[in-house]
Amino acid sequence: MSQGANEPLILITNDDGIQAGGIRALAQAMIPFGRVVVVAPDRAQSGMGHAVTINGILKMEPVHFEVDGVAAAWQTTGTPVDCVKLAIYEILGKKPDLLLSGINHGSNASINVIYSGTMSAAVEGAVEGIPSIGFSLLNHATDADFSACVPYVKQLSEQVLKRSLPEGICLNVNFPNLKATEIKGMKVCRQSAGYWEDAFDKRTSPGGSPYFWMTGKFTNPDQGQDTDEWALRNGFVSVVPTQFDLTAHHAISTLNQWDL
Amino acid sequence: MSQGANEPLILITNDDGIQAGGIRALAQAMIPFGRVVVVAPDRAQSGMGHAVTINGILKMEPVHFEVDGVAAAWQTTGTPVDCVKLAIYEILGKKPDLLLSGINHGSNASINVIYSGTMSAAVEGAVEGIPSIGFSLLNHATDADFSACVPYVKQLSEQVLKRSLPEGICLNVNFPNLKATEIKGMKVCRQSAGYWEDAFDKRTSPGGSPYFWMTGKFTNPDQGQDTDEWALRNGFVSVVPTQFDLTAHHAISTLNQWDL
Repeated sequence: MSQGANEPLILITNDDGIQAGGIRALAQAMIPFGRVVVVAPDRAQSGMGHAVTINGILKMEPVHFEVDGVAAAWQTTGTPVDCVKLAIYEILGKKPDLLLSGINHGSNASINVIYSGTMSAAVEGAVEGIPSIGFSLLNHATDADFSACVPYVKQLSEQVLKRSLPEGICLNVNFPNLKATEIKGMKVCRQSAGYWEDAFDKRTSPGGSPYFWMTGKFTNPDQGQDTDEWALRNGFVSVVPTQFDLTAHHAISTLNQWDL
Repeated sequence: MSQGANEPLILITNDDGIQAGGIRALAQAMIPFGRVVVVAPDRAQSGMGHAVTINGILKMEPVHFEVDGVAAAWQTTGTPVDCVKLAIYEILGKKPDLLLSGINHGSNASINVIYSGTMSAAVEGAVEGIPSIGFSLLNHATDADFSACVPYVKQLSEQVLKRSLPEGICLNVNFPNLKATEIKGMKVCRQSAGYWEDAFDKRTSPGGSPYFWMTGKFTNPDQGQDTDEWALRNGFVSVVPTQFDLTAHHAISTLNQWDL
């Protein structure tokens, strides 16, 4: 990789917070590829989806980041999407050549993509016209081992730096929780039609008032062998091209037959 | 409309908070259609996207709601998507026949759909298999007049109760800020390829530390006459079928040509 004025500018963010192991692994992997800048939330922001801070203020500050070779690291009080906007318009002053988000501690396959702050940061990158990838490992543990992800992170990043991505699209990449030798390769997939069977754990505060913890069980009735869930269950890294045009184009003709 | 055991159960939520004028107008409009239950955030939650509360607790309580005929109203400490989940699994104990979100104070057309708590509540309804519609008026004012929206809210709700919606789809409905007599009708559209040119207003706290307010300007280079932005600019109510399958299906074959 070239080191100098022409080296790629690589922005790294996440939703587990700047202290998380996954973002360290991701930054470390990208050092040989260009100038790496980390801008991430100052605390865990999981499940924040595409939230932006419009009714409150944002703060940010440079911080020490424990990966040799990182050009700069900033933590912000904002959401992952806030981090992308602050990075472009206040910290970098320009759009990076590549935006990587993650590596998330836990799956963002199937319907999880819409709740995920990690993926929303990548989607925001795509809105900004930046080649963007969100990475997630199917292991929630704080001390999860990301080493098996690294070769795929590098291979995909190299391809995206070389080829860019189709307009309006980022990549949602999920890793099975397997050893490097057990992973069978990458598979381009569609988002599986899974969903969460929600439930709430109702408790009572010391003062006597009820409160709730959201729980639930992921369910995937979609048996397609072209889905991210199938790929992950069968030992592949899933790669889903993901877009922010939410129009259900195929339904337009149906609705045009209604009496509107 | 039937009043009794067979009357439709209609869940109403929003992201401007249960005190907002838009949700009162929406609930009022739906009283003749069935049993109306309101479950909404206890404060403004604009820009929350598809955020869910997974790292904290949720509270909720029944409240008085100033619309005659509303069967029940609850406010929660959660996001709009949290409200939908709490409503189904803790308050109603079943899925409603129709979920309406809004009427939002401000546009959720074009790219705004991905930032919008109002639309994320409707999308969550679609994930749950509930016919769902999000409504928004192109007027941010607290005292905005929603009366011109009401006939369209009723007409669309009637159609959706009668026909349901294609699987995996909700409707994103935006109203131009016009008098009833100036609105030309409804138009089924696609989401326009607009975006926000972000900016930050940097200020200094009394203690001397910098902080930021997110600002920005909506820009729409998409000149298509089949877009929501075109419809709204030309006096129509825009109706965009909106899906939660974010897969860019058309990009799968491109990615399959990569060296992965």
